[in-house]
Amino acid sequence: MSLQEVRVPWEPLKAFTQQVFQQAGVPPRDAETEAEVLIWANLRGVDSHGVLRIPWYIELIDAGQMNPRPHIQVVKETPATLLIDADYALGPVVTTFAMQRVMEKARATGIGWGLIRNTTHQGAMGYYALMAAQADMAGLAIVCSPPNMAPYGAKAAGVHNSPIAIAVPANRHRPLILDMATSVVAGGKLRLAIDKGVAIPEGWALDKEGNPTTDPHQAVTLLPFGGPKGSGLALMFECLTSIMVGNPLLEPTLWGQETVRRHRQNSVVAAIAIETFTDVAGYKDHIDKVIDGLKALPKADGVKEILVPGEVEDQVYQDRIQHGIPLPEGTVRNLRRVAERFHLPLPPGL
Amino acid sequence: MSLQEVRVPWEPLKAFTQQVFQQAGVPPRDAETEAEVLIWANLRGVDSHGVLRIPWYIELIDAGQMNPRPHIQVVKETPATLLIDADYALGPVVTTFAMQRVMEKARATGIGWGLIRNTTHQGAMGYYALMAAQADMAGLAIVCSPPNMAPYGAKAAGVHNSPIAIAVPANRHRPLILDMATSVVAGGKLRLAIDKGVAIPEGWALDKEGNPTTDPHQAVTLLPFGGPKGSGLALMFECLTSIMVGNPLLEPTLWGQETVRRHRQNSVVAAIAIETFTDVAGYKDHIDKVIDGLKALPKADGVKEILVPGEVEDQVYQDRIQHGIPLPEGTVRNLRRVAERFHLPLPPGL
Repeated sequence: MSLQEVRVPWEPLKAFTQQVFQQAGVPPRDAETEAEVLIWANLRGVDSHGVLRIPWYIELIDAGQMNPRPHIQVVKETPATLLIDADYALGPVVTTFAMQRVMEKARATGIGWGLIRNTTHQGAMGYYALMAAQADMAGLAIVCSPPNMAPYGAKAAGVHNSPIAIAVPANRHRPLILDMATSVVAGGKLRLAIDKGVAIPEGWALDKEGNPTTDPHQAVTLLPFGGPKGSGLALMFECLTSIMVGNPLLEPTLWGQETVRRHRQNSVVAAIAIETFTDVAGYKDHIDKVIDGLKALPKADGVKEILVPGEVEDQVYQDRIQHGIPLPEGTVRNLRRVAERFHLPLPPGL
Repeated sequence: MSLQEVRVPWEPLKAFTQQVFQQAGVPPRDAETEAEVLIWANLRGVDSHGVLRIPWYIELIDAGQMNPRPHIQVVKETPATLLIDADYALGPVVTTFAMQRVMEKARATGIGWGLIRNTTHQGAMGYYALMAAQADMAGLAIVCSPPNMAPYGAKAAGVHNSPIAIAVPANRHRPLILDMATSVVAGGKLRLAIDKGVAIPEGWALDKEGNPTTDPHQAVTLLPFGGPKGSGLALMFECLTSIMVGNPLLEPTLWGQETVRRHRQNSVVAAIAIETFTDVAGYKDHIDKVIDGLKALPKADGVKEILVPGEVEDQVYQDRIQHGIPLPEGTVRNLRRVAERFHLPLPPGL
């Protein structure tokens, strides 16, 4: 934890974020979507997927790898499926569009299964799964990128630490949102350690020689959680996304065919309409009851509270919506540079 | 490893298994399906889901909890979804039926998503995912049962160690088949340890007081893999299966509403037709290439070969198809008792 950490109120930070992307050439509505997804992550304590990413996104726009004005195309569709080419759109722009479309399909056909080809970084995948939960559906989102994680048994990157998010609605409780990487920790946690100037625990990552490291600057290859399980899920996610859209992202690196690596990712977003299978009110009531039941179980030694997926983030949200988003020194410094470049006033606290 | 282990050729063991179920009242074709799924697991080294389960299944039939002649009903369907009531059918009987139906839907609509309510034990879920892969589709299968695993932070069961299986076809290589429980190990591994008369490693399970144990006879509660990740997946799988079909399986135990626990489980089987999104031949070629690329990565210290999902089971299969299925003493003893009861000749080696 940095001593220099500041707290920034979320609304001006969101407005600032939107202005940054507008200045970078993104239309206002799309810039707002991007800001919405980033601030949502920060508010929920997922700082690795929040405004800390802004400087990188701006670099990608500068480099022509992230397209502020993409031509998003529906390439193929059936009553239940969708294939979208994102034209390197900002991830939140194309992914919210795709999720809206699969939700329409789910309402008509029970399920909507959408594949997105050539998007750029999508932020926290839980956001999209939650969109479905808020419409009385189960939501699912998966993403794959080029290799950054060692498959089980290897000492170099071969798979991506592809995250999966699943969300379902409750009644009295907030929706359940599971949002997990297939690595021990998400890659953004390494950036956050750099911004905070702290070491990482052993077991998170390998250095470029394939040796374990605790220095986030040396950490280049993530490690899978649960050994063959996290590693296997990551590979299967590539098979369900990138290879399914004819745009493999592991293969080019594994075969040494890619020298200049263009940032891109492929994704699944899906929605299942609860009403297709069962009564929606009853469903939500059962979710409440399973949450209550789990939380009332006898606790393991040293555990204060049994938490369900998304609950720790909900607790952080309650704090941050009132008291602002804490930003570490490195993030503050980087955002000030972005503000300077675009001649934007800083939000209060920054 | 027991000293008394014997090797039994797979074909007579399969014929024997089929006869057992026929004697128990199952129609010949359904008995063959059950035998097929059990022997498939044994051939692939997944002994925890093989013929070791026969005595338990017979008990369930005796107790009226597993229905040898079920009235399987399609309760609801759309062009992409299916809801089946299994009427406590033998798992493989209803699940192969459901997978065939969702594959038809996938061929027409791109995806088929089927929910099965009130099935009984389905065996190795990889079998069903593989059915889709063999038809040029991606296959997915998930199952939930009453609690047998401690959610993260608890010292008593609250979730089920719900497995997930995902399979996709390759060209030169065998299909990739990921089939994993959300616990550190599958529950059947505890039965296998009992049959083998060996201890289990610490970290697999808790005893009935919630303390860690290495005695498989004392092990009543499994532990999740990856802590909150395995635990979270397991809960979300209940939300996608049992609660989605209006038949919650965690809640009744958590709320103490169920004193006599009827064996049952709920399940998702899904198929995604590759041709909907991309060229099938190209898809399989990319799967080959990613497998080759992963296997050629530099190996971690002490690792002889980098294995992809399903590969270790494929290697066991090559051995067992030729040299028979090794059965530990406990399993042999139990199967001899079953043979006696039904006046069936033992297969050679048993």
